[in-house]
This record gives sequence, structure tokens and C-alpha cells, in this order.
Amino acid sequence: MLVEPRTAKGKATRERIVASAAALIGARGVAEMSLDDVLARARVSKGQLYHYFEDRDELLRAVVGFQADRVLAAQEPELGSLRSWRSIRAWFDRLVELQTAVGARGGCPLGSLVGQLAEADKGARNELAASFDRWEGRLRDGLTAMRATGKLRAGTDVAALATATMAAIQGGLTLTQARRDPQQLATALDAAYAHLRSHAPRRRTA
Amino acid sequence: MLVEPRTAKGKATRERIVASAAALIGARGVAEMSLDDVLARARVSKGQLYHYFEDRDELLRAVVGFQADRVLAAQEPELGSLRSWRSIRAWFDRLVELQTAVGARGGCPLGSLVGQLAEADKGARNELAASFDRWEGRLRDGLTAMRATGKLRAGTDVAALATATMAAIQGGLTLTQARRDPQQLATALDAAYAHLRSHAPRRRTA
Repeated sequence: MLVEPRTAKGKATRERIVASAAALIGARGVAEMSLDDVLARARVSKGQLYHYFEDRDELLRAVVGFQADRVLAAQEPELGSLRSWRSIRAWFDRLVELQTAVGARGGCPLGSLVGQLAEADKGARNELAASFDRWEGRLRDGLTAMRATGKLRAGTDVAALATATMAAIQGGLTLTQARRDPQQLATALDAAYAHLRSHAPRRRTA
Repeated sequence: MLVEPRTAKGKATRERIVASAAALIGARGVAEMSLDDVLARARVSKGQLYHYFEDRDELLRAVVGFQADRVLAAQEPELGSLRSWRSIRAWFDRLVELQTAVGARGGCPLGSLVGQLAEADKGARNELAASFDRWEGRLRDGLTAMRATGKLRAGTDVAALATATMAAIQGGLTLTQARRDPQQLATALDAAYAHLRSHAPRRRTA
């Protein structure tokens, strides 16, 4: 079980450990992340690490939650205010800009963990699934609101649209990382946008 | 540099090493694959391993190529004969069936390596990019043929369509793996199919 720090200092120490592990994984992958590197980067002792985390797996699960918070925060305010076609387009453009800013490196901080953790640790997989649910839920909320205001046709399956859009984002990021090219995500999202728009009423509302 | 085996026996030994590494990675991820495990599974000595592979990175790059061959072969004959809407639908159905058969485990044998290898090793990333190019090239060939026969509108950007479809596959597989649910890929591919079809001439051809 995670030990929840009781003091502000303890909380800061725990966060520094998780952030250090996340940074090391982002740079080199889970395979290359040693606990010794985490200790050095976070400037903590082995005792402090094991005070907060029972083992490496528990630290990795904490990294998933940390990255989920980070990924969702990086998409604000766009992700939390998807109420129009313009706002969806702005959100997609923001996602591409983020990839351009990092030189198309690292992929999705969450998605790139799936292949690394899903088969190795059940807890990590559950944490990843829950993180995607949070993300997709924000999008589904936006699409539901757009359906309610007539921007999507009545009867549109917003859950399916949200899942398909998440897939476009994840796959676009995989190709972006493999090819070091943000245009891969842009192309995937242009298609996702066109597919979303195909569910607008015949006479389109902006 | 890879040492190319000169005898049938050498070739079989090398392949057994790569296949063993691939199986271990598929089950537990790159992070958990030790060379000792590979030796045990492939029933080879350390000397044999280092005869064919300079180091672990070189073995990992060989695993990428091995998985690319496997992934492409698993999609035949569908992938090599994408000439109609029916054949695209059959290919998508096949991809979902493959996930159902494995209990939605493991994700894409190629895509799941991106997050694990792309930032750790440049050679591996190049090998991954080349593998996606091979895969996407088959799809692009099919779409180009469909455009030539009027199943897609003249002027359709088949390169962009192929990339967007690849993203739907990759993202659908990421969500399938995280959620242990093949329906995630099915939903992503239903959207991809609808998007492809939106590029058919107004009067559709089957």
C-alpha cells in the first residue's frame, strides 16, 4: 500500500521521487530506469524511497498516476471546455504543438507506458486504464454537451466517438514518436476531426 | 554489425535467440527481459549469443525486425489484397479477431515496442519507423489501387488516409491492451472505415 505522507515536507519528498522516476522513464524507458538513478536524481536515501514505496512496481504505478495528472493538465484549458467545433480544433492543434515543442520525442507520457507496464504488472495496467478513462471522460462530456446543443446529431454515439478519437490521439502519438514527426499526429487528428464533423447535423453549426 | 549466419544450423540458432527474446518481451516487457532468460529459453550459450549479437541493443533491434515480419505475416492474405471496401472490412475484422484470440493481451507487437525502445536506442527507433513504413506501404498500395479503379475519389490523399488508418490501428491496440478489451480496436476501426468510405465517390461502388 502507498504510504501517504503526513507532512508537507514528506509530500514534497514523495513527489520528487515520483517525478524523478517519471523523468528517467521518459528519457530512456522503464527498462533503463534503475532505483539508484532515481535516488540520485531525487536526492533521497534508499530508506526514504522504501518508506514511501514498497517496491519498484509500486513506484511505477505512482508514475502512471503522476503522468495522468500531468497529461491532463497540459491539455487545459482546452480539454475542459470542449463545447464547439472551434474548441475541438483548438484542442487538436494544441496537442500537435506540444509534440512540436518536444521535438516529437517521448510519445504520450501515458500511452508509451502501456507497452512497458501492462503485461508486467496488473496494478499498473489498472492504473493506466483508469487514467485513459479520466481523459476520455472529459472528451465524452464535451461531446455530450455538443449533442445536447445540437452541434452533434441526436442519437450520436458519443461514447464510441470519444473512444475513436482517443485511439487517433494515441496512435498518432505512437507514429509521431517512431518517426520523429509531429505531422503524424496532425494527420491522425485531421481525420478524427473530419469523422467527428460527419456527425454534425446536415446544416452545420459552428 | 549483425553477423549473418552462414549455415542453416547457425540461422536456426540465431532465429531461436531472437524469437526467445521477442517472446519474453511480449510476456513481460523489455524492462524484464534479461539475457540470462533469453539464453535459458533459446537453449544457447552466452558465447553463441555474443557470436550473433554484439550487445543487448543489437538483439533488441533484431527483435523489432522479427516482430515486423510476424505482424505483417499475421495480416495476410488480407493486407496484401486491399482492393475493395469488402477487403478492407475483412482486414479490419481480422485485426480484431487476432486481439480476441489473445485475450486483448500484448498490444501491437511493434507498437508496444515504440515506448520501450524509441528513446533508448536510435537504431531501434529507425528500425521501428522502417517497420511502420513497410506496413503502411501495403495499405497505401491498396488505397492507390482503389483510387485508380474509382473506389476512392480522384485526388484523394491516399498517403494521409493510410497514415490516419495506421494511427487508428495503433491507438486502438493501445486502448485494447490497457483496457483488456478488443472492442476498443473494433470501435477505432469502425471510425477509420467510415472515414475511408467518406472518400468514396457519391455513388458508392462496392
